[in-house]
Amino acid sequence: MAGSTYGNIFKITTWGESHGKALGVVVDGCPAGIDLCEEDIQIFLNRRKPGQSKYTTQRNEDDKVEILSGIFEGKTTGTPISMMVRNKDHHSADYSQIASYYRPGHADYTFDEKYGFRDYRGGGRSSGRETIGRVAAGAIASKILEQLGICITTYSRAIGTVEIDYSNFNKEEIENNPMYMPDSNAAIKAGELLKEKMAEMDSVGGVIECLVDGMPIGIGEPVFDKLDANLSKAIMSIGAIKGIEIGDGFAVSSSTGSTDNDGFQMKDGKIAKTTNHAGGIMGGMSDGSQIILRAAVKPTPSIARTQKTVNKSGEDIEINIKGRHDPIIVPRAVVVVESMVAITLVDMLFNAMTSRIDKIVDFWKK
Amino acid sequence: MAGSTYGNIFKITTWGESHGKALGVVVDGCPAGIDLCEEDIQIFLNRRKPGQSKYTTQRNEDDKVEILSGIFEGKTTGTPISMMVRNKDHHSADYSQIASYYRPGHADYTFDEKYGFRDYRGGGRSSGRETIGRVAAGAIASKILEQLGICITTYSRAIGTVEIDYSNFNKEEIENNPMYMPDSNAAIKAGELLKEKMAEMDSVGGVIECLVDGMPIGIGEPVFDKLDANLSKAIMSIGAIKGIEIGDGFAVSSSTGSTDNDGFQMKDGKIAKTTNHAGGIMGGMSDGSQIILRAAVKPTPSIARTQKTVNKSGEDIEINIKGRHDPIIVPRAVVVVESMVAITLVDMLFNAMTSRIDKIVDFWKK
Amino acid sequence: MAGSTYGNIFKITTWGESHGKALGVVVDGCPAGIDLCEEDIQIFLNRRKPGQSKYTTQRNEDDKVEILSGIFEGKTTGTPISMMVRNKDHHSADYSQIASYYRPGHADYTFDEKYGFRDYRGGGRSSGRETIGRVAAGAIASKILEQLGICITTYSRAIGTVEIDYSNFNKEEIENNPMYMPDSNAAIKAGELLKEKMAEMDSVGGVIECLVDGMPIGIGEPVFDKLDANLSKAIMSIGAIKGIEIGDGFAVSSSTGSTDNDGFQMKDGKIAKTTNHAGGIMGGMSDGSQIILRAAVKPTPSIARTQKTVNKSGEDIEINIKGRHDPIIVPRAVVVVESMVAITLVDMLFNAMTSRIDKIVDFWKK
Amino acid sequence: MAGSTYGNIFKITTWGESHGKALGVVVDGCPAGIDLCEEDIQIFLNRRKPGQSKYTTQRNEDDKVEILSGIFEGKTTGTPISMMVRNKDHHSADYSQIASYYRPGHADYTFDEKYGFRDYRGGGRSSGRETIGRVAAGAIASKILEQLGICITTYSRAIGTVEIDYSNFNKEEIENNPMYMPDSNAAIKAGELLKEKMAEMDSVGGVIECLVDGMPIGIGEPVFDKLDANLSKAIMSIGAIKGIEIGDGFAVSSSTGSTDNDGFQMKDGKIAKTTNHAGGIMGGMSDGSQIILRAAVKPTPSIARTQKTVNKSGEDIEINIKGRHDPIIVPRAVVVVESMVAITLVDMLFNAMTSRIDKIVDFWKK
Repeated sequence: MAGSTYGNIFKITTWGESHGKALGVVVDGCPAGIDLCEEDIQIFLNRRKPGQSKYTTQRNEDDKVEILSGIFEGKTTGTPISMMVRNKDHHSADYSQIASYYRPGHADYTFDEKYGFRDYRGGGRSSGRETIGRVAAGAIASKILEQLGICITTYSRAIGTVEIDYSNFNKEEIENNPMYMPDSNAAIKAGELLKEKMAEMDSVGGVIECLVDGMPIGIGEPVFDKLDANLSKAIMSIGAIKGIEIGDGFAVSSSTGSTDNDGFQMKDGKIAKTTNHAGGIMGGMSDGSQIILRAAVKPTPSIARTQKTVNKSGEDIEINIKGRHDPIIVPRAVVVVESMVAITLVDMLFNAMTSRIDKIVDFWKK
Repeated sequence: MAGSTYGNIFKITTWGESHGKALGVVVDGCPAGIDLCEEDIQIFLNRRKPGQSKYTTQRNEDDKVEILSGIFEGKTTGTPISMMVRNKDHHSADYSQIASYYRPGHADYTFDEKYGFRDYRGGGRSSGRETIGRVAAGAIASKILEQLGICITTYSRAIGTVEIDYSNFNKEEIENNPMYMPDSNAAIKAGELLKEKMAEMDSVGGVIECLVDGMPIGIGEPVFDKLDANLSKAIMSIGAIKGIEIGDGFAVSSSTGSTDNDGFQMKDGKIAKTTNHAGGIMGGMSDGSQIILRAAVKPTPSIARTQKTVNKSGEDIEINIKGRHDPIIVPRAVVVVESMVAITLVDMLFNAMTSRIDKIVDFWKK
Repeated sequence: MAGSTYGNIFKITTWGESHGKALGVVVDGCPAGIDLCEEDIQIFLNRRKPGQSKYTTQRNEDDKVEILSGIFEGKTTGTPISMMVRNKDHHSADYSQIASYYRPGHADYTFDEKYGFRDYRGGGRSSGRETIGRVAAGAIASKILEQLGICITTYSRAIGTVEIDYSNFNKEEIENNPMYMPDSNAAIKAGELLKEKMAEMDSVGGVIECLVDGMPIGIGEPVFDKLDANLSKAIMSIGAIKGIEIGDGFAVSSSTGSTDNDGFQMKDGKIAKTTNHAGGIMGGMSDGSQIILRAAVKPTPSIARTQKTVNKSGEDIEINIKGRHDPIIVPRAVVVVESMVAITLVDMLFNAMTSRIDKIVDFWKK
Repeated sequence: MAGSTYGNIFKITTWGESHGKALGVVVDGCPAGIDLCEEDIQIFLNRRKPGQSKYTTQRNEDDKVEILSGIFEGKTTGTPISMMVRNKDHHSADYSQIASYYRPGHADYTFDEKYGFRDYRGGGRSSGRETIGRVAAGAIASKILEQLGICITTYSRAIGTVEIDYSNFNKEEIENNPMYMPDSNAAIKAGELLKEKMAEMDSVGGVIECLVDGMPIGIGEPVFDKLDANLSKAIMSIGAIKGIEIGDGFAVSSSTGSTDNDGFQMKDGKIAKTTNHAGGIMGGMSDGSQIILRAAVKPTPSIARTQKTVNKSGEDIEINIKGRHDPIIVPRAVVVVESMVAITLVDMLFNAMTSRIDKIVDFWKK
């Protein structure tokens, strides 16, 4: 199968390898009439760019996006939007050794088994650079959500063992620290943890949290295409993610019905929930309260320490992976999670426009 | 959108409401030549049947499956297999009151908002009975996996706060206790917990764990259709699931790269992993080791206690939901999780048959 | 692959064999709030029922539809509508001989080669009875089109060599003659032709024509999902269809640009086309004028004459196919063509609701 | 909806406008291990290039393809292959006038109605240049078919009223004349016809025929995804195509069962058909004989003659479309038809690999 296309109505197709000529995405199903320029995309791409702090890769990658189609006189035309980022910094020679063995924590082995060989340069298709296409598409999805009054807030909830303190929660803070944490104290502690782990030639994981405000009620389909099901696929499809929670998540397993059930009450003449353990999704459909989800991110698999593995000749060996190693994936993955959420929400919103005949008749009869 | 169809090559479409005439599923893309009879399906359906123990619903539901198409002389023909279970036990009168208000923890409110009204009898389409179609399809998928030497083991890992002790793990035990736990001691304790909660007119959640042995390497597509991504969607699409973990899951967030990375070593002349923190999936593809996943299940939302909610006239009210209430969903959901895993694995295995031109040429040239 | 599911948003999945227990369809993605009862479906099914005239099969088939889900209090609920027709009249004994050889003009040989064996009773899945599911779904699609002011007219344009004369065209006449021709003179001549062919133990083909009035402009997607492309697939997927034309169809090959181009002119303050050679579709999108399409139907392959073929033992043999043989497929296929057109139009109309951001914002902000 | 993606397992997504920055395609689901370089693609693209003869556009377009991803060390890697052709020759100024009115025979009006405005430069997305992506993908599909021993022959069967004479049929001749006709006499006559029509400032249509040899038996799915149904969609999705025939096509309507039925006979110990009226497809599946299909192509809509239309201000006007006008589309569309056929065949071949459990077990157990 293919597997590089995501979405039903708002559909994205990504392509490209870490050290190929370029990476990109085709966004098909984007409505006509949206103001869009390369700068809109670039802002999103810059949020995933390395070299932003001393804790992330120091490579000088420009990741300059070029929009190749689908825009005319500054507006989307309704036809596919093709976007591309040229790869600049590839010295394939660096990767000659990696070709001969399987790095622990990477997809080298599974790629070789599936396809018979692999583009071993920088991880090829399974590199983190694959997310460039997702983020470029996410920038467009976000512009659509903005027009519908829907707002996504995404941040690092935990960097290794350092969690944010919600009593310090400050949304404005997120973009102000290299950890993308909404709590400046936690960000400082996280920085110290990373320094420590770098000294140990090791890496840490963390948790990304995402909140969605302003969703209309009833988005998501009741059975297989539940909103939470599609969000889970979207986020779990990002490399390095190993767990997903909606609302209270795993905590529900030790909760009770009397606690976990969100009651309803009238508030300012409208129906509102008294609590939000469900994280804004009931029966697979948005319920009008804040959508809450969390993703567990594993530690960066590329570490400087000596590791045991095997080579392609079937010998047990010890390796030292040279090069620059980020001690943490989390901060750079924040915008990737946000992008996949945005893309999913747009697709599900579009899907939800045909749930009632009265609204359909109204749409076409006008 | 539709949303009642799942899978790309091995495709299932479920239909039916809790108190409609019947529920069922169409399985399309099932290969020809598989021995299949109604008894094969019934065995699976019986695993989700209520009335199996004092802790689950005492209704006398037969849930007798009828295969309507796709079988000839005891074998699948390659054409769609339609299966149906007639609903027997519907006294719609019981549900007249439910029509007027929104039950906490249920999809009543979101259904009304999305569609303008709802089939309120027994939860309608969002009832647990919707899973009948999934389980019937899962029985077929399991037969296919069996022929490929792939084995799925699914069980309750936790019932409320009672977790299994892996030093007592006994696979044979799973079907021997009403908790579907592989640890008989834990099952006894869980039984006591449920008794207690029933007395309190309350309910509990839990965790289901699923292990897959015998998977070929390289199943799953590297980007959006990662094996873990599709499994996450499949399981999160089951009502009451609020979290998913693969391998170490959320624990990776506080782990380090040096611990989390699974090394490789030669073992009996073959490449093997030294550990399995990744839960059998690397870069979205099966890596030959055991696949491990966990799902968090929320407490049964229907509880006998008085709860606060609003009615359709916009008044704050207190309700007492009458009828039989299971204090736990987990044991009955075990086979549903297993079914969704089986369906996903078959679909991904079929998808993976076209990854290499040499194998394709070999297939067609024979 | 599957192959028994059609449509993207308005999605149908058919199942069942000629002599299995039942045949049916699941319609998923039907909006909530449409008045629907079994009689609505039955009216459509009766149009494809045999035994309506001396020229079509005299079997006493009831084809009584049962709606199993998706309706509550007389209205669609937005959940999948499952519909079933039980098979009544199966004496498998009749078909024992057919099992041993390959009937000319039938799918016996290709089925055996693809699947290794086949359900040979009455053609199995490739029987004309497979269209029951399509027509039941078409009845629902037609109800949706009706609410949008879209009207489909379908009829036999030619029965063998007998074509209708457009100067005699009378829409009311279509349902009045067993040929479903809008020209009573042609219908009489066609009847004579059929009598003659029956005497010769032979059969004839024909042409079905379909007109759609009232389509909004801009339905259809500009590249692969052109309205004409999807209509072509829909109709060519009906057994026995061997050709499709839109508008002037094959006649364009010998036309010139100056003739074939449809000009525009102002008419009552609106833009209108001066001619309609294009058959209502420009660049894959509806252009506001009448959609015109034609389908070529082959002669009934089951004929009473002695025919040459081979048996499964690889011997050249002569066969006489016993039983009732329709000398013509065309009249019974009229409603099948109409159904596939209706299903396609609804799906494309739903797809077209997200082409412009201003309309999307308007939809959600209300 | 999207609508720029085609195929289920072998999936292509095209993008780009006539006068945008570039046009291209992403081919996803291409197996690993195929030798592929830009020259393989270029050969196909050159077959659709204008400026090849005095009868086709004299623009100096290079249409030089660049492969951006999915190839490593000269072989496909199994990841998406992104291909791009930069647009060179755009003087948007030429098109300023076209912006104000609707050209007869073009999609200007339907685009404006659907999207609110359009990229009017050179037809934008509905330009013939949109087929660049299809042809680049077709080159890859053709390489796959070649390895499976499947051969496609495509040519002009008719240019306007000039048809080929099958007694002169010479496959080698096709590439030797600018008409892509397998009959050199007909090609000369067609050339004279075109000269005449150019003098009249007019254009002509024609018929493209496509033959497929070497198909395995049983390719195509029996209901909606019939091989002929998918081929019809594929070809009808090409702009300017108005009719499709399989085998005898529309001629079946006046044939009889005794003539139209293809008998079977033993030949060299194998089952063979005595005739091939069905065009190699029975019950939607390939039957081992030659697949035959034809497509009717309309005359080029851009003609130099004065034409009547309306402008965006709602005034009746007369227009003269300036610029270079091909008097015929057919020869350049030959490779486009061949490409869409190749893409469809590969997708259906891949789909057909899961029809039998014994073959699946064999595949995975090896």
